[in-house]
Amino acid sequence: MWDTLWTDVHLATMAPSHITRSDPYGCIKNGAIAAQDGKIVWVGSAADLPDLPQNLARQVHHMGHQWATPGLVDAHTHLVYAGDRSNEFARRLEGTSYQQIAREGGGINATVSATRAASEEALLELAIKRAKRMIAGGTTTIEVKSGYGLTLHDELKLLRVGRALEKHLPIRVHTTFLGAHALPPEYSGRQDAYVTALIEDMLPRVAEEKLADSVDAFCESIAFSPQEVERIFEAATKLNLPVRIHADQMSDSNSCALAARFRALSADHVEYANETGVKAMATAGTVAMLLPGAFYFIRETKLPPIDLFRMHKVPMGLATDCNPGTSPVLDMTTILNMACTLMRLTPAEALHGATSVGAQALNMHSEIGFLREGYSADITFWPVSGPHELSYWIGGVTPSTRVFKGQTD
Amino acid sequence: MWDTLWTDVHLATMAPSHITRSDPYGCIKNGAIAAQDGKIVWVGSAADLPDLPQNLARQVHHMGHQWATPGLVDAHTHLVYAGDRSNEFARRLEGTSYQQIAREGGGINATVSATRAASEEALLELAIKRAKRMIAGGTTTIEVKSGYGLTLHDELKLLRVGRALEKHLPIRVHTTFLGAHALPPEYSGRQDAYVTALIEDMLPRVAEEKLADSVDAFCESIAFSPQEVERIFEAATKLNLPVRIHADQMSDSNSCALAARFRALSADHVEYANETGVKAMATAGTVAMLLPGAFYFIRETKLPPIDLFRMHKVPMGLATDCNPGTSPVLDMTTILNMACTLMRLTPAEALHGATSVGAQALNMHSEIGFLREGYSADITFWPVSGPHELSYWIGGVTPSTRVFKGQTD
Ligand SMILES: [Zn+2]
Ligand SMILES: [Zn+2]
Repeated sequence: MWDTLWTDVHLATMAPSHITRSDPYGCIKNGAIAAQDGKIVWVGSAADLPDLPQNLARQVHHMGHQWATPGLVDAHTHLVYAGDRSNEFARRLEGTSYQQIAREGGGINATVSATRAASEEALLELAIKRAKRMIAGGTTTIEVKSGYGLTLHDELKLLRVGRALEKHLPIRVHTTFLGAHALPPEYSGRQDAYVTALIEDMLPRVAEEKLADSVDAFCESIAFSPQEVERIFEAATKLNLPVRIHADQMSDSNSCALAARFRALSADHVEYANETGVKAMATAGTVAMLLPGAFYFIRETKLPPIDLFRMHKVPMGLATDCNPGTSPVLDMTTILNMACTLMRLTPAEALHGATSVGAQALNMHSEIGFLREGYSADITFWPVSGPHELSYWIGGVTPSTRVFKGQTD
Repeated sequence: MWDTLWTDVHLATMAPSHITRSDPYGCIKNGAIAAQDGKIVWVGSAADLPDLPQNLARQVHHMGHQWATPGLVDAHTHLVYAGDRSNEFARRLEGTSYQQIAREGGGINATVSATRAASEEALLELAIKRAKRMIAGGTTTIEVKSGYGLTLHDELKLLRVGRALEKHLPIRVHTTFLGAHALPPEYSGRQDAYVTALIEDMLPRVAEEKLADSVDAFCESIAFSPQEVERIFEAATKLNLPVRIHADQMSDSNSCALAARFRALSADHVEYANETGVKAMATAGTVAMLLPGAFYFIRETKLPPIDLFRMHKVPMGLATDCNPGTSPVLDMTTILNMACTLMRLTPAEALHGATSVGAQALNMHSEIGFLREGYSADITFWPVSGPHELSYWIGGVTPSTRVFKGQTD
């Protein structure tokens, strides 16, 4: 007997074995899917089930012909932070300049101060609250970056909070060390010294305590230079930590090619990526992680080079980039709609971005991101007419049922 | 004894008596609000309550210092329709042209066909499902337009569905007759004859059966001309029905001035409104109803003349414009965020647009839209740090508690 069988359900498996030219979702209409010990053990047409449902599983759920997708993957979030920047948002709209807000200690420094001042327990409580809203929106796996601590002590604290989320919620977490998010104020004028401290003091401890699954860096004229990022990536590589990068968001600094040289899991934002970089990503297997929430919130007008990614077969991922300054958003179907509406992805590209490609960017594509036998039974059920409808609604779609490792949430 | 008292709550009253230069929301921090027979009977600082809470009301709710606002008003929706246009959305993104989709019977004609074919019961069921999502988002009052029937029989059917919503849900409904939404296919080439039929056959029946609280028309080169709209408005005015207008969405046709001549409740969209029209609206008391969902979805780049509306003190309303073709969105806080992010309204302007100004556009501003004594106890409670935070989250905020005429939903 299986643990659970869901039937009367249409499946968007996202699995290559089911994808055809006319069906980019790998659909199985009138399907059924079964879980045992947290894994998917059977996927197919309900008509092909080997016996009556009640003879096959201890629990049988009839899903009223809703659609099931792999649980959504949000592969770029800055979920762990304290403080509130909504007031800054209001003041900007009321006419206060960025400069004025920065002078008053606003901007990212406000989040760094509040996050350093917060206890690990307080940060965990805040992160749980936000993660619950992600879960409510159909997400089952998240990446969580550090980057608002910027001291050894505080970065470790943030990464521990990321890890702890898995103990308090059914969600699956990939943690990323982003010590190279911004120059901490106490290093003002000494950026090189901060990078050295990051490489010599922070990275080894992060690796030793196994607190990070990857290492990220913000490569931009206002953040860290390609040379500095290269030093960080070399150190991470020596510690066997895969890398990813905030790349080419506001200008072209050739950071996609840099990412590819280190076989980065993903290059994120990438609005200003050039074709050489895109080709290098294709060869390296680096995912282009598109972040339409930030694109929308800062009213960027330069679109990422979607056609180049298509032409060179660079997989396009999608994520919330959830952060208090430039992308306050928690649910992935809002992002699917923005990716289609603003960036002109097709709904199928968008759903792959939030499932199979997101899984690849987290190096989890042999566990999650598909409805396939042997994969984790992370399944989201949606009251929609087809998988394309998940991208249609402005403000997103709410799932009816969420399953984590075979267990209904 | 009052029926219900909510305390430990911050109030954004939106009431002129509480608004100051530095507080556009009319806030009462650490406030309390009481309801009796569906109306607000007491609003003020909790410290000023005349007795202990338990001596004042049969039910006392401690709200943990959440924020309360007037229930949100969504003053422009095309909620009653059948059919699904999400597939069209996908096909457009996959490269099919509008022309091809129209040739295949898509676009608004697809919605008209499906809506005509649907029974009143089926339409009601669909509308209830959508209205429930609006309610979940904090909306307590909606405007509902007809306009996908375009025959006497079908337009009456849609308006009855609008009216029936109030029997099935706690929501308050203002119905609008929008026979002049599009030229029905059977009148192709005979637009004048359709306008005549609308005026002579449809409008009188709508008035006689008291099915509409206002009359709307879509004034645009692709829809009805200012001259045709004028004929319709004259007929509506003779029947004592107030008017409103889909105005200047894609081009400047002077329709704001036309609206003002008929003292329209609102002129909606208004991206291309000119200053003469804006001044006329100010004099006539016509609300400028901004619809950021459609602005976003069709990737409009021309912003409505926000500064002119401010300068001439034309109240700016906000609504979802919920419709399957150009604005598939149901929750108002998603709209608040888009109004601020895309149109640069301040969060205070946005919240007024969704409360006090929305109420004005529905001619209900002596009943709803404010937290004031004598007003309906339609109250939404939000887990936010301040009313500005309602505009901050991409994809909106979910209220914790919704109260309709004093009753918790
Ligand atoms: Zn980021
Ligand atoms: Zn409309």
